[in-house]
Amino acid sequence: MIGIGAGDPEQVTVQAVNALNRVDVFFVLDKGAVKQELTDLRQEILDRYVRDRDYRMVWGRDPDRDRTASAYTEAVDDWRRRRADVCARLIADNLEDGETGAFLVWGDPALYDSTLAILADVRERGDLPFEIEVVPGISSVSALAARHGTGLNQVGGAVQITTGRRLARGWPAGADDVVVMLDAHTAFAELTEPDAEIFWGAYLGTPDEILVSGPVSEVADRIVSLRAEARRRKGWIMDTYLLRRRSR
Amino acid sequence: MIGIGAGDPEQVTVQAVNALNRVDVFFVLDKGAVKQELTDLRQEILDRYVRDRDYRMVWGRDPDRDRTASAYTEAVDDWRRRRADVCARLIADNLEDGETGAFLVWGDPALYDSTLAILADVRERGDLPFEIEVVPGISSVSALAARHGTGLNQVGGAVQITTGRRLARGWPAGADDVVVMLDAHTAFAELTEPDAEIFWGAYLGTPDEILVSGPVSEVADRIVSLRAEARRRKGWIMDTYLLRRRSR
Ligand SMILES: C[S@@+](CC[C@H](N)C(=O)[O-])C[C@H]1O[C@@H](n2cnc3c(N)ncnc32)[C@H](O)[C@@H]1O
Ligand SMILES: C[S@@+](CC[C@H](N)C(=O)[O-])C[C@H]1O[C@@H](n2cnc3c(N)ncnc32)[C@H](O)[C@@H]1O
Repeated sequence: MIGIGAGDPEQVTVQAVNALNRVDVFFVLDKGAVKQELTDLRQEILDRYVRDRDYRMVWGRDPDRDRTASAYTEAVDDWRRRRADVCARLIADNLEDGETGAFLVWGDPALYDSTLAILADVRERGDLPFEIEVVPGISSVSALAARHGTGLNQVGGAVQITTGRRLARGWPAGADDVVVMLDAHTAFAELTEPDAEIFWGAYLGTPDEILVSGPVSEVADRIVSLRAEARRRKGWIMDTYLLRRRSR
Repeated sequence: MIGIGAGDPEQVTVQAVNALNRVDVFFVLDKGAVKQELTDLRQEILDRYVRDRDYRMVWGRDPDRDRTASAYTEAVDDWRRRRADVCARLIADNLEDGETGAFLVWGDPALYDSTLAILADVRERGDLPFEIEVVPGISSVSALAARHGTGLNQVGGAVQITTGRRLARGWPAGADDVVVMLDAHTAFAELTEPDAEIFWGAYLGTPDEILVSGPVSEVADRIVSLRAEARRRKGWIMDTYLLRRRSR
C-alpha cells in the first residue's frame, strides 16, 4: 500500500518512489470514467517516478456502495466484503509467486481509506498468502494545513479528524480544532459556534486548488457557492476543512 | 518551513527535497547536546538531498520553557515570545535581502510544533518582511499507523489527536480512536477502558524503532518498562501511540 499524497505529484516521498520502483503489478480499483482526472494524475505519478522498469497495470471494477441504506456501518461492511472479493480475484489472477503488487492510495493510507482493511480481509481468508507493507503519504489534512500556513492544534490542545456526517450532529466534544473530511453536504454552514474560523481547501495540490479562510459566519456562503460551482464545472469535488474555535 | 518526516530520511517528499535545494540559510534552534542524534539525522538529510549548492547553517539557542509554571498556556506563550526574539535576531543577522531561509521541522509542521506560530509572531512585528511557505511532512502519526499496518479511524468514525497531559484526564469524548503525542508519563497505563487496544511506537523511522501493540491491559506494563529502559539507554525518547476502543 503506497500513499501517494493528496494530489500534488511532488508530495510523494522518496520511500514511495523507491517502493513504486519495486512493483510488478499495480492494482487499480476504479469506479468508471467519472474521475478520469484522478486516473490521469495517478498515471502521471507513475510516468514521473518509475524508472527503467516494466510493470503491469490491472484494473478492477470497484463495486458501488449502497448509499440508500440506513445502517451506514453495515452498508460499508457489505461493500468491503464485495471489494475484498474483487481484490482477491485481482491478486490471484495477476500476481505470480514472489512478485510484488501495489495499491496506490490518495493521501495517507491510514485516513478514511478501506484498502488496508480489505487487504486484511483477503489475507484472513487464508488462501492467498502475502505480506503487507504500508508506505505513509501526505494526507489532505497535512496539505490543507500547509497551504493555509496554519497548525492543526492550538498550544497543548487536541484536534479531532471527523466526517461531515458526524459534524452535522454538532461540534465534537473535547476538541477546539476539528478537521472535516468526506462532507458532501457542507455541514459547516449549519454550525452555531459563534466565533469559529474555517480553513477550507478543495482539489488540494492540483492546478484547480481553491482555498478560502475566515470566520465561518463571514465566508460560509461564499464557500458553499464556490463549491457548488466547482463541482458543476468539473463533475466532482474533493474538499477538506479545518474548523477552529478559541480554546476554552 | 520544511517538514522532514518523523525520523526516516526516506520519508522526505520530493517537494521537500526541491525546497531544500533552494535554501541559502538553514536555521536551527537547538537545546544543546542532549539530542545530538537528532542533529546528526538532520545533517544526514541535508547531505543526502542537497545537491551542488552552498548553504550556510546558523544555530540559535532555543530558550528553555518554564516547566514549573502552573499556567501551562502562559508558560508556553512566554516561551514563544522568547523564541520569537531569538528567531528575529537569527533572521535579521543572517539573511540578506532576496535570500531564502528555512526551518526544518520534524514530522509535519502542522502538528504540535510552534515554529509556524513563532514565525507569524516575528512577521507581525513588521520590521522583517518575508513570505512563509510551508512544505508538509509525514507526521509521526502517519508513520505510526503505517508501521502497525492499521488505519487511524474506524469506518465512518472520528480520530482525536491529543497530548498525554489531556489523556491523563480520561478518554476524550467523541472519538473511539485516539492518538497521543507528547506523553512523558505513560498516561495509557492509567486508562480504565476495559477493551482498549494500543499501537505504540518509539523512535519511529530510526534504527532504534520499537513497536508494541495489543490490548492495553495485556501490554501496558511491557511498554512502560521498555520505554523506561530505552530512555535510560539513549538519554531521550520520542514515542506516540494510537488507542482504539470498539466503536459504539
Ligand atoms: C476517502 S477519503 C481519503 C482521504 C485520504 N486517504 C487522505 O489521507 O487525504 C476522501 C476525502 O479526503 C479528502 N481529500 C482527499 N484528497 C483531497 C484533496 N486533494 N483536496 C481536498 N480534500 C481531499 C476529502 O475530504 C475527501 O472527501
Ligand atoms: C513537538 S511534537 C512534534 C510532532 C511532529 N511535528 C510530528 O508531526 O510528528 C513531538 C512529539 O511527536 C511525537 N514524535 C515525533 N517524532 C517521533 C518519532 N520518530 N517516533 C515516535 N514519536 C515521535 C512524540 O509524541 C513527541 O512527543
